[in-house]
Amino acid sequence: MRPALPCDLLVTADVMLTQDDERRVVDDAAVAVTAGRIAALGSRGQLSGFIPAQTLHLGRALLMPGLINAHTHVAMTFFRGLADDLPLMQWLMQYIFPREKRLTADIVELGALLGCAEMIRTGTTAFLDMYLIEDAVTSAVDASGLRCVAGEGIFAFPSPAYGTAEEGLALVEAQTRRWQGHSRIRTAITPHTVFTTTPRILEDCRDLARKLGLPLHMHLAETPEETDTCLATHGKRPLAYCRELDLIGPDVTFAHVVDVTEEELDMLAANGVRVVHNPKSNMKLASGVAPVAGMVARGMLPGLGTDGAASNNSLNMFGEMSACALLHKVYSRDPTVLPARTVLDLATRGGAASMGWPELGRLITGGPADMLALDLCSPNFQPLHDLTSHLVYAASGYELRLSMVEGNILYHDGRWMTLDYPLLLSETRKLKQWVQDNAL
Amino acid sequence: MRPALPCDLLVTADVMLTQDDERRVVDDAAVAVTAGRIAALGSRGQLSGFIPAQTLHLGRALLMPGLINAHTHVAMTFFRGLADDLPLMQWLMQYIFPREKRLTADIVELGALLGCAEMIRTGTTAFLDMYLIEDAVTSAVDASGLRCVAGEGIFAFPSPAYGTAEEGLALVEAQTRRWQGHSRIRTAITPHTVFTTTPRILEDCRDLARKLGLPLHMHLAETPEETDTCLATHGKRPLAYCRELDLIGPDVTFAHVVDVTEEELDMLAANGVRVVHNPKSNMKLASGVAPVAGMVARGMLPGLGTDGAASNNSLNMFGEMSACALLHKVYSRDPTVLPARTVLDLATRGGAASMGWPELGRLITGGPADMLALDLCSPNFQPLHDLTSHLVYAASGYELRLSMVEGNILYHDGRWMTLDYPLLLSETRKLKQWVQDNAL
Repeated sequence: MRPALPCDLLVTADVMLTQDDERRVVDDAAVAVTAGRIAALGSRGQLSGFIPAQTLHLGRALLMPGLINAHTHVAMTFFRGLADDLPLMQWLMQYIFPREKRLTADIVELGALLGCAEMIRTGTTAFLDMYLIEDAVTSAVDASGLRCVAGEGIFAFPSPAYGTAEEGLALVEAQTRRWQGHSRIRTAITPHTVFTTTPRILEDCRDLARKLGLPLHMHLAETPEETDTCLATHGKRPLAYCRELDLIGPDVTFAHVVDVTEEELDMLAANGVRVVHNPKSNMKLASGVAPVAGMVARGMLPGLGTDGAASNNSLNMFGEMSACALLHKVYSRDPTVLPARTVLDLATRGGAASMGWPELGRLITGGPADMLALDLCSPNFQPLHDLTSHLVYAASGYELRLSMVEGNILYHDGRWMTLDYPLLLSETRKLKQWVQDNAL
Repeated sequence: MRPALPCDLLVTADVMLTQDDERRVVDDAAVAVTAGRIAALGSRGQLSGFIPAQTLHLGRALLMPGLINAHTHVAMTFFRGLADDLPLMQWLMQYIFPREKRLTADIVELGALLGCAEMIRTGTTAFLDMYLIEDAVTSAVDASGLRCVAGEGIFAFPSPAYGTAEEGLALVEAQTRRWQGHSRIRTAITPHTVFTTTPRILEDCRDLARKLGLPLHMHLAETPEETDTCLATHGKRPLAYCRELDLIGPDVTFAHVVDVTEEELDMLAANGVRVVHNPKSNMKLASGVAPVAGMVARGMLPGLGTDGAASNNSLNMFGEMSACALLHKVYSRDPTVLPARTVLDLATRGGAASMGWPELGRLITGGPADMLALDLCSPNFQPLHDLTSHLVYAASGYELRLSMVEGNILYHDGRWMTLDYPLLLSETRKLKQWVQDNAL
């Protein structure tokens, strides 16, 4: 008999999907949490030796790792539903850019808080973010209890956060120092795109990423139009241009990667480059379909991302899993591609890898206590034939009963625990007002 | 000053989308209900003369007409998640057909009750159903309080409900008599497909539909493989075959309509034929993409349907609206096709027309009191820039606070009012057991 072991919290539930290397599923499951990490997990019987300071018996619930939103612009919730169903350039020029020029830290922080509230409510526990005035985003993330890799978008033109790109990168260094040692917040170097930067800026980004040991994350090959622009400006397709600038490697992650050739996919796979797939945004903006089945066939495991709420229009990773699984089947005319198991892997383990935080996206002993509990009584989960199928094809995200990051409860049975949601809701009126006041 | 008018119920909420001919949006809205119909609707001030027997002040909620699931097989919830990500024939031959042969009325009714519970929970108030042992489905619908047009699937081979197709049509006549005069339940003539029937059966179906004055609803042109089979068997593409059998007209509705030519679309539009689009099912089974933008451009307004939970895997019309709006944008490489307003029309007015019940799908004085209230405090609805956009692109369906059919409340703030959901949930274990016991 094992000696009694103290732990901070013991969570039990009817079943657990670990997403560990063996994708173990455990019935009558328990997780012991101490100091933000998983002290042990298994069946309740196996964990009977623990003496918890607190217990949470969830009953008919499913435990699983938190989902990872591997590419988003969380603050852009302020633009949700502002202007849909428009050609891209009209949308950008008439609605988005005029307002983004006048962004303030207060508006960015409030938009980010709203996005964090939605992500907490729908089962995201970690995300990679790129935006303007990213300091305000990280402040919101810090308050929300979520985990984030945060990047200030770097452009060749002034942003509301800095003047020149050089000043932008100095800001990134300062942000990196600010969050150094924080257990939930990291930084990344995030040049915006190949067409909103210069070769010199991208080289500076690359060098700073190496100097600080940070991942580099950039939008790439989102549309055929981007490819045309890159060919016209630099004489090369986007990936060849990046290779020329030595921007191809395992610490680099590209978001979108829609307009790529088979040879380019081979090159990405051979060099361990990470990719994030954003199916709903690519569909809504009519950008095209990323060859995700081809990536998986090459042994790549992309992350999944919602992109911003301005082009989705939600930050709900359950919706993203469903869209991903369905889109590639009809696109390839093959109902067997991207089965539910693979898609759940993308939204957990793939996302973790793509943001350079590989211990996330799974429940393992010693790993971070970032997990969810979903209500197994929801009608769309009946009968309980296959839980992974239900998570990908049937779940809405609003079956969530519990969200936890680092052992800290963010949401529980109808209440946000780290955010004052009623207050936040009343503050979102300011976002609507700001958007109205700052029309073109 | 108007005299005081009694009404059964007065519902008020912050805003109402009527989906009437002018698509009126009313702030500080009220609906007066009497004897299952809308006695009046407008602003609270306009309805101040009513003396209601009961009031329901919903506050920060959105009132809208109930959604219409224009093509489903509601009982098939028992197969949800049983076997995904498989080639169509393997799925049918190994998993579905062997069990459907052994269906009983009890299993069909239980599956249908489960499907009704999910549809009520996610905002569907009326649906068109086609399945086996449809008597058991209508019993479930009757108990649930939903509205339904129900059809016994007619095949050239024996079904668990009848022997020959002739006996099947006799059964349909009996079912039609059974529900004659019921305010919520109607019947339809529903031959299964062109490849599971004969010309003689389809002619008999057509004649019975005319004799009884019922709509005829059939799966058609779901895949290129169906077209090939029809060409090989009958020497014609499916629509030409139907025209030869005089099955083209305004009382005919075809579900799917994926593999059609421009000329066939012209013919459908010219003859007032109705169509139901099932985007998620078509995506999951890799059937192809129905040319819905081309239908809308021709003045057709298709209905939207989930198809059965075996190929979706939910019965959630909010998910279907989102999939529809996104799929056609990327498929046509045009972000302006099927804007949110059109998609909401498909899920309300289009569905109503496609099932031959045109007074549904809108809130109008004198019309049926079939309506929903959604929680406007949900984070994915913030800021409140554009409610129609949020319903199509951001809603999950689980924002539902109230569902009403014919003035009768089916769901209210966490509780099913017509179904004993906890009991139903415990009964769904029988469905899982039955599926396991009846493997090939």
